[in-house]
Amino acid sequence: MRIVVDAMGSDNHPAPDVEGAVLAAREFGETIILVGDQAQIETELARHNTAALNIEVKHASQKVVMADKPGDIVKGKPDSSLHIGLQLVRDGAADAFVSAGNTGAILGVAMLRPVGLGRIPGVKRPALGVMFPTEERPLLIDNGANADCKPDYLLQFGVMGSLYVERVLERERPRVALISNGEEEGKGNSLIKETIPLLQASNLNYIGNIEPKEFMQGAADVGVVDGFTGNILMKTAEAIASYMNNMIRDELMANPLTVVGGLLAKPAFRRVRQRLNPDEVGGAPLLGVNGVVIIGHGRSSAYAIKQAVSQARRMVTQQVVAAITAGLTG
Amino acid sequence: MRIVVDAMGSDNHPAPDVEGAVLAAREFGETIILVGDQAQIETELARHNTAALNIEVKHASQKVVMADKPGDIVKGKPDSSLHIGLQLVRDGAADAFVSAGNTGAILGVAMLRPVGLGRIPGVKRPALGVMFPTEERPLLIDNGANADCKPDYLLQFGVMGSLYVERVLERERPRVALISNGEEEGKGNSLIKETIPLLQASNLNYIGNIEPKEFMQGAADVGVVDGFTGNILMKTAEAIASYMNNMIRDELMANPLTVVGGLLAKPAFRRVRQRLNPDEVGGAPLLGVNGVVIIGHGRSSAYAIKQAVSQARRMVTQQVVAAITAGLTG
Repeated sequence: MRIVVDAMGSDNHPAPDVEGAVLAAREFGETIILVGDQAQIETELARHNTAALNIEVKHASQKVVMADKPGDIVKGKPDSSLHIGLQLVRDGAADAFVSAGNTGAILGVAMLRPVGLGRIPGVKRPALGVMFPTEERPLLIDNGANADCKPDYLLQFGVMGSLYVERVLERERPRVALISNGEEEGKGNSLIKETIPLLQASNLNYIGNIEPKEFMQGAADVGVVDGFTGNILMKTAEAIASYMNNMIRDELMANPLTVVGGLLAKPAFRRVRQRLNPDEVGGAPLLGVNGVVIIGHGRSSAYAIKQAVSQARRMVTQQVVAAITAGLTG
Repeated sequence: MRIVVDAMGSDNHPAPDVEGAVLAAREFGETIILVGDQAQIETELARHNTAALNIEVKHASQKVVMADKPGDIVKGKPDSSLHIGLQLVRDGAADAFVSAGNTGAILGVAMLRPVGLGRIPGVKRPALGVMFPTEERPLLIDNGANADCKPDYLLQFGVMGSLYVERVLERERPRVALISNGEEEGKGNSLIKETIPLLQASNLNYIGNIEPKEFMQGAADVGVVDGFTGNILMKTAEAIASYMNNMIRDELMANPLTVVGGLLAKPAFRRVRQRLNPDEVGGAPLLGVNGVVIIGHGRSSAYAIKQAVSQARRMVTQQVVAAITAGLTG
């Protein structure tokens, strides 16, 4: 198997991206193709023991910078690591693409054919899945690829999310729910209300509508939501978690007794952080494009990159793209 | 001033509702009219020292129960505490209505004329404001009264929210923002994109679009959002906070050293809880109806009810309804 890792993706690229690729090559024994500035990649690679590892480097002459807008990258930087990397997958020279880069740009290049992969036939809108970082790890789909959605998009998100969870996480008959502002009949906006009959008529294991609380507690394996609301939900969850962490730290520091308490309690806080660590989750699969694409967080560590490669690898072995192709046409 | 308190509203009614009314009557010296089952209210009142307090009781023969759907209450229980209480405000026999009851039913009765108050002339859709319980206490509007919104509704939410914050919280020229999935141009769903020019053309202090993180940190005084997304945002925030609290408690209990640490750190956790306590906030003002209505959380304590009365009282003295009437027609 050959997996592309975008060396220029993460906020701190290329260090975590290259190290993650090295870790992945070592652990999984697959070939990793690092795409990006060749000189920078080789400098980073020299810091690691890469003997006996299958690591290739593919030069990309253009660099995506912070100020670039997704649209500018898609059209204006045809030799970026995103373009080169996704084209390797498009042309069958690689099996999967992993990047911690600009989500909008990756979506743009990946969805566009012939520049990138294009959609699986029958897919109305590719969508970003993301494993919600509570322990139950339910899949939220869409996490922001589609700000405006129609009922038939949401139905397809349910199909793609269900196939992903079934194949990659090996859960049988994943429970699919709509994420809504209430579980009762009559709750939801018109998008939710119009999607319900489509899900009911599908062969998905649709269990109804759930609120964010039930979703994060694992009441469903797949939470279907439009990309605008899904993105707000994820960002709210991250923001509250970080707000509370900061406040707890400040208050622990506020007097000597609680400082001592905080020190003694440190292992507990560390376990909480581990249990809710988004790095464990890997990255967000872009479902519905004609190839395996995993998008990592901009702040990805080397470990997170390695986890994202592991996830990409499972999507390849479990033939998720073929399953979605069959699921949407069959 | 005469303020109605729904005695049958909270999950544990009538105890917290009646006690909250007593606390409010004592602290503010206003007349409180308790509406609900007269016998139950009098039993509760007998537990408190009400000498020298202005507390009246108004009987409502019908009781809202958990199984009631909002629509059934609005039409089928014309003698509920909601109907009687809101009609006192409608008829000028009271200045404000406070309830910790079923939000959907309160919205239904309050908006409907002649049963309830009806809308302020020119208001397209009344909306629920809620002070977000981070320390900066920004106002989120709409928190769920309108699952489907149009750009001109959102513009009005901005006007009403801004007037509320200006009058009740006495902040000059409140900063108004749209809550979106990104701050950059081009982000947002079509509702957001169509609302931007309306806000830009208004005389509001519109500062652009913000993400949930910036909103909860107080980057704006008023965060405008459709009621579906706003409700998901609030529910996600509550769910994550409670999920983290439970996990921290579990992990602290997991070994003797962290138990001791947790005990020593207790004052810090108590301060965190106080700083994020939704009870301090009072309740959610229903803005755009023709009268002052404050809706408390179902789990409201007596203290939260008293705070909600305080908030209602400020809305009356600061003439928020008149300000909205002028603001939307002027």
